[in-house]
Amino acid sequence: MTQAVPLLVVEDEALVLIDLQDALEEGGYLVLAATDGPGALQLLDDRLAEVRALITDVDIGPGAITGWDIAQQAREVRPDLPVVYMTGASADQWASRGVPNSILLAKPFATAQLLTAVSQLINATTKIIPDQKE
Amino acid sequence: MTQAVPLLVVEDEALVLIDLQDALEEGGYLVLAATDGPGALQLLDDRLAEVRALITDVDIGPGAITGWDIAQQAREVRPDLPVVYMTGASADQWASRGVPNSILLAKPFATAQLLTAVSQLINATTKIIPDQKE
Amino acid sequence: MTQAVPLLVVEDEALVLIDLQDALEEGGYLVLAATDGPGALQLLDDRLAEVRALITDVDIGPGAITGWDIAQQAREVRPDLPVVYMTGASADQWASRGVPNSILLAKPFATAQLLTAVSQLINATTKIIPDQKE
Amino acid sequence: MTQAVPLLVVEDEALVLIDLQDALEEGGYLVLAATDGPGALQLLDDRLAEVRALITDVDIGPGAITGWDIAQQAREVRPDLPVVYMTGASADQWASRGVPNSILLAKPFATAQLLTAVSQLINATTKIIPDQKE
Amino acid sequence: MTQAVPLLVVEDEALVLIDLQDALEEGGYLVLAATDGPGALQLLDDRLAEVRALITDVDIGPGAITGWDIAQQAREVRPDLPVVYMTGASADQWASRGVPNSILLAKPFATAQLLTAVSQLINATTKIIPDQKE
Amino acid sequence: MTQAVPLLVVEDEALVLIDLQDALEEGGYLVLAATDGPGALQLLDDRLAEVRALITDVDIGPGAITGWDIAQQAREVRPDLPVVYMTGASADQWASRGVPNSILLAKPFATAQLLTAVSQLINATTKIIPDQKE
Repeated sequence: MTQAVPLLVVEDEALVLIDLQDALEEGGYLVLAATDGPGALQLLDDRLAEVRALITDVDIGPGAITGWDIAQQAREVRPDLPVVYMTGASADQWASRGVPNSILLAKPFATAQLLTAVSQLINATTKIIPDQKE
Repeated sequence: MTQAVPLLVVEDEALVLIDLQDALEEGGYLVLAATDGPGALQLLDDRLAEVRALITDVDIGPGAITGWDIAQQAREVRPDLPVVYMTGASADQWASRGVPNSILLAKPFATAQLLTAVSQLINATTKIIPDQKE
Repeated sequence: MTQAVPLLVVEDEALVLIDLQDALEEGGYLVLAATDGPGALQLLDDRLAEVRALITDVDIGPGAITGWDIAQQAREVRPDLPVVYMTGASADQWASRGVPNSILLAKPFATAQLLTAVSQLINATTKIIPDQKE
Repeated sequence: MTQAVPLLVVEDEALVLIDLQDALEEGGYLVLAATDGPGALQLLDDRLAEVRALITDVDIGPGAITGWDIAQQAREVRPDLPVVYMTGASADQWASRGVPNSILLAKPFATAQLLTAVSQLINATTKIIPDQKE
Repeated sequence: MTQAVPLLVVEDEALVLIDLQDALEEGGYLVLAATDGPGALQLLDDRLAEVRALITDVDIGPGAITGWDIAQQAREVRPDLPVVYMTGASADQWASRGVPNSILLAKPFATAQLLTAVSQLINATTKIIPDQKE
Repeated sequence: MTQAVPLLVVEDEALVLIDLQDALEEGGYLVLAATDGPGALQLLDDRLAEVRALITDVDIGPGAITGWDIAQQAREVRPDLPVVYMTGASADQWASRGVPNSILLAKPFATAQLLTAVSQLINATTKIIPDQKE
């Protein structure tokens, strides 16, 4: 527990991102943050191998890239990566555009919901694939 | 996360209620509280549409109304409402009097148990019914 | 139980489709079948409202339409529809292209796997959304 | 597997009961049947200790007793008893009147749904309470 | 579905083994059987890579080897292998001697319980580890 | 919530133990700690009846006793005891040496993972076995 557990967080609103960061660091996580689509794709390229989960807003500002796309691209490389989506208006698209074994948090959500969601998904991954060497 | 997530909490012991309130607010929730059966039923009438979960003590002081009744009445109006029961002496009645998809916390319980229980149930609701408009 | 429960099944190999149909009818289901992408989309248009689940092969012959696409389109209209994918070579795409709360059966699979998968998903839907009128 | 596994089945329509009985016996179960409320309560009194699950229609003909009542009474004596409800018109009451850890099958349902539901619940019970002697 | 799905079944009573084999083959599985501890270990050596699940009696006749040992050895080589235990007298040892993510069937059990248990575990494995190539 | 919920924690590194203790007490738990195998076995003898879960490091310093052994011994006496393992190098042994219904946390892990894991397991136990008196 001396090292924090790295997560990739994508959120375009600066104030919300600060809140997320505070809550996740309080829970023992380390946040690698992106604030728009291109930044998120760059982080996927650079740091995907080391993060333990992806937490992504769905509507990340202007541009064609959405949280649905980011999660899909991340899963192409890391099929077991835990994914948590955050959304206000786009919750109704989760059933058709979300990836399997993901959790959607409808905004507004409580800090405890976020910590429980990401922790539960990471714990399940660890549990199920105990021996990556096989 | 700028708005807190409202919950309905029913607990007749004032000191316990303060503890619950502190723990839940720490986790990002907003507590609408009732301290007896009639107060709980009044809150169901007034605020049920806006809360995201019900947390209820089972034995709520004198009178015929129990936590089992309150949860049942809430579910008649909101069948998908997450329900967490708290009880000391009445845990053995949960299997016959509790509602489906509820969690029972046997007293004494830890703050983390409460936050995990309510967050897990709310997250599951969001996940499963993504499109309320349909 | 006097009426069979209708399912939409998409499978381009005629012999496999007959096997699937036999197994599912033995289990009390009624199969509405499509053998290619356009036929599947036509069935979605015509009969989606009445089926209780979608069972789809992933690689359905020549053409641009895959089982991933069919499930996504079905979920846009029916976000709670149970989905079972069947695939040989494309299992590795499920984590990024599958829909939430779906099950993937890697070929070859046993009849009992198919019946358990579809039944479990339908039972969970019924359980979680008890009141469709709300 | 040489002995069949006994279940208590409550269903007031004789033809439906025969179908249920055939399906369950095909799956290796032995059916103890009641066709109305008083008969069901009598069976609870006489045979509850030996059955492994309760399968009950919700609307069991004239009289005040419903499937909700029968399950509740059974759970008062056997809190770990698996319960499967079958219903057409009353599915919307499950969220408020059903017992925890039960499954509701909306009519019409397939034989495979019933076998999967009851088997899954019995398997979970066995798994979770491995040592009844404690 | 044209090929049957191979399972490893360990059961020392010949008549019970025949029943198991009939039920599993009816469900689309192919049974590789061992009737004692040494035979089971031999099958693990020879065929473990190709089976999709292990179904093992716990008390397999004279000798020091039990079903607990066989499952543990199988999991050392295949950590994701679905395991179903069958037992009469030794169910109370499952909580301390069983492997994670296994199901225990207390004898007597119904055919449908066995098919549901093994199918559910295999389906979950397929679902969770979609891309073995990664 | 006025009384803390007692847990048994086994961890041989003093600094890590302090971190665990802080995090668990923050979540409302009371830690009974052991720092080596013999100490853990002594605590099992003395206090097992009163704790609500076991959290154990797998590699607990010199000596033949491992976290796998401690959990197994605890489960022989308390088959329903929630178990959380913590490990760096030995995660690949969980599938064969862990007990059923346990969670493995791969080091490094976040505080929130630990609190979620132990709380979720305790909540599930309470839920499933509502009436210990039966």
